[in-house]
Amino acid sequence: MSDIFSLKVEELVSKIKDAQLTSVQICENYIERIKKFEKDVKAWAHFDKKLLLEKAAEADDHRRSGKPIGPLHGIPVALKDIIGTVDMPTECGTVIRKGKSFSQNAEIVDLLLSAGAIVMGKTATSELAFLGPSKTTNPHDYSRTPGGSSSGSAASVASFMAPLSIGSQTGGSVIRPASYCGVVGYKPSYGLISRNGVLKTSEKLDHIGIFGRSVEDIALLAKVLIKKDNYDSATIHYSTENLLDETKKGPLFDPKFIFYKTDHWNIVDKKSKEAFEYFIKSFKKNIEVFDTPSYFKDIHKFHQIIHETDLANNFALYYKKYKKKLSKYMQDAIVRGNKYSAKDYAEAIDFIKRSYESYQEVFEDYHGVLSPSSPGVAPKGLKSTGTAEFNKVWSYFGTPCISLPLLQGEGNMPLGVQLVGAKYDDHRFLGIANWLEKECNN
Amino acid sequence: MSDIFSLKVEELVSKIKDAQLTSVQICENYIERIKKFEKDVKAWAHFDKKLLLEKAAEADDHRRSGKPIGPLHGIPVALKDIIGTVDMPTECGTVIRKGKSFSQNAEIVDLLLSAGAIVMGKTATSELAFLGPSKTTNPHDYSRTPGGSSSGSAASVASFMAPLSIGSQTGGSVIRPASYCGVVGYKPSYGLISRNGVLKTSEKLDHIGIFGRSVEDIALLAKVLIKKDNYDSATIHYSTENLLDETKKGPLFDPKFIFYKTDHWNIVDKKSKEAFEYFIKSFKKNIEVFDTPSYFKDIHKFHQIIHETDLANNFALYYKKYKKKLSKYMQDAIVRGNKYSAKDYAEAIDFIKRSYESYQEVFEDYHGVLSPSSPGVAPKGLKSTGTAEFNKVWSYFGTPCISLPLLQGEGNMPLGVQLVGAKYDDHRFLGIANWLEKECNN
Repeated sequence: MSDIFSLKVEELVSKIKDAQLTSVQICENYIERIKKFEKDVKAWAHFDKKLLLEKAAEADDHRRSGKPIGPLHGIPVALKDIIGTVDMPTECGTVIRKGKSFSQNAEIVDLLLSAGAIVMGKTATSELAFLGPSKTTNPHDYSRTPGGSSSGSAASVASFMAPLSIGSQTGGSVIRPASYCGVVGYKPSYGLISRNGVLKTSEKLDHIGIFGRSVEDIALLAKVLIKKDNYDSATIHYSTENLLDETKKGPLFDPKFIFYKTDHWNIVDKKSKEAFEYFIKSFKKNIEVFDTPSYFKDIHKFHQIIHETDLANNFALYYKKYKKKLSKYMQDAIVRGNKYSAKDYAEAIDFIKRSYESYQEVFEDYHGVLSPSSPGVAPKGLKSTGTAEFNKVWSYFGTPCISLPLLQGEGNMPLGVQLVGAKYDDHRFLGIANWLEKECNN
Repeated sequence: MSDIFSLKVEELVSKIKDAQLTSVQICENYIERIKKFEKDVKAWAHFDKKLLLEKAAEADDHRRSGKPIGPLHGIPVALKDIIGTVDMPTECGTVIRKGKSFSQNAEIVDLLLSAGAIVMGKTATSELAFLGPSKTTNPHDYSRTPGGSSSGSAASVASFMAPLSIGSQTGGSVIRPASYCGVVGYKPSYGLISRNGVLKTSEKLDHIGIFGRSVEDIALLAKVLIKKDNYDSATIHYSTENLLDETKKGPLFDPKFIFYKTDHWNIVDKKSKEAFEYFIKSFKKNIEVFDTPSYFKDIHKFHQIIHETDLANNFALYYKKYKKKLSKYMQDAIVRGNKYSAKDYAEAIDFIKRSYESYQEVFEDYHGVLSPSSPGVAPKGLKSTGTAEFNKVWSYFGTPCISLPLLQGEGNMPLGVQLVGAKYDDHRFLGIANWLEKECNN
């Protein structure tokens, strides 16, 4: 493999700036990988080699002209195929949208372009970012699922077909595929990244997330994407000024963690359990193992009520007109979503605040919460994308969470450790994630 | 009447500071009024003359000690009886809570105390801040309703039994009684004033509001109450540094208004209609009359879905245990609230953002929206508190609104003009309200 794959994205940009590398060279390296692996991994929903090389050449021309360049100048970024792009289709993983495009770029696409990044292509997604699997396989074992719904986003980075990618999470659609595919996956606090121009599945639960190969790469991209947007009123003002510096610097002293084995510890495979026990033991000065709070069970129920009701509302037209073209997963969810009462829904929304108030007391004594990213490694077969049982709570709370590819489980498949932080504390959170990554790699 | 009733609250505080007046003198003046009028107006749910005079004496001692004093030092403020106070009961207008207290002061009570204000007593509220009327009458005509649900808060200020009071609005519970009673009533933007420790009826719709006799008095109290509170996660950081100054200064040039006659213009009485026509004519350089946007009709429907569902959730226990002690209004609302679907509720919540985005375009060309505060003057009889049809939209949007007692309708009863602003633009909004008040009083 070419040297460029061992470099951090920041180093790539620096080399482009100093004319030691061109964007065309970088993109050619990734195109080589795609030629080799895409036939098996099937990560892409839309990829146009010629268009990519044209954009890369433009980026190089721009650099040569001496004009100022952005923090991601010339870097190709892969986008989950639910993110609106004017120059490529946005099919959202459903035959109903075959060949269809969004009428404008998503806000985050414009932020990428302003930063000098190149939209590399669209990555395969589960049907409408829900549970119906895409064609994508796991790069570590083609007979296993890559996880969902950001299947192609995780798999493209894992197979070195893209240096960075963007996905989304409503249940566990960033953390789960990151864990299964062995890459870093980050879901920021709710309201940091605009969802304007991205397929909406649930106003309260939808988050944009990022895949990369290191915490630093992730932070570099997050810094570009985090921005208040008046067209996504959930977004807040949040300064990213020192985001990358604080990520690199890390915490001032050794962080303390709570480790939740979660209520579903019984479904974790034996080898994965051993890996987690080893991890906990090797950080015994930093980690205390606790029982999962009892109200997490309620949260799973409330998450489902909100998610399925919102699916029923947002896809009511598809259900009415194209019911048979929707997966069984989606049909069943919509049927249930149509049945909940307003009281259930209001209670589910109301409990977010109340339960988070209890939960956040953790951060008076600890710097983060750790847990498995997924209940074991990627399951065999491509008909299911696995389970989000270890992730839904954090989508419901809107806390930052990240999956770090630190362990291996059954069949030597990758296995992620999930770190969760306090809401709107993403600077410190990424610093701690970086610390953890470094400690494990030393 | 004593001179103190003609002074602005800021002037009262200044006189206390300069030892020209004591808090005891001020309170004695109000106690005199209460002696005279309370038997007819019935504004108070809890009033303890001795306790009030003790607190006033303490405030005077504090002043004499030379310690620093707050912006409301020694000023008595009346509180709607849904606001938690440790030294008085909080009965919320229902026999179910007869004699019961909240376990701690509401956040706004602590803010009042920090500012040196005195909690004067608790004012009568409709049952659980909904539609079941309290015993309070309209000070201008005891045979008419004072409006609700902040009935006593409005009536106490209108009858000079209190200089300032605090109420709440979920539908029209500040603007309507302010209009009927002829005082200034202000509901700030959603999220400016904490509702922590106040009876919760609807998370999305509940707002704290203020009654006073001038826009400046209102701004002085608002400045004390507006504060981010981690225990009401709807609250935002909002600087009140220049709130009073900007209110006094007003707009730099003549503001332009839209006037909505609303969809219910047909239910306005003839004399009130004439008063509004005269008002519009006398501001013809500033006002353009427009049709009410068509989606306001949907908003009334959505407001009802959210409000009644939230009542059904928040008062589920009362309904289960004490159904017969609840008014017909409340019982019927809970029955309906139990029937809405989650889809209806999610749609109703979702439409807030979408419709406000359309609505806010008004502020590209105009500085405010005007309308009647209520469809005519206070109706005769005490069995209904009137209608909130002219107010629900602004509770739903969370925009600032204020009722100014500028007109008279049928029977020479007071009639309010409602001014509505853009969300989170309360500084400028109060400046414009002050301008309007001054223009009308000149």
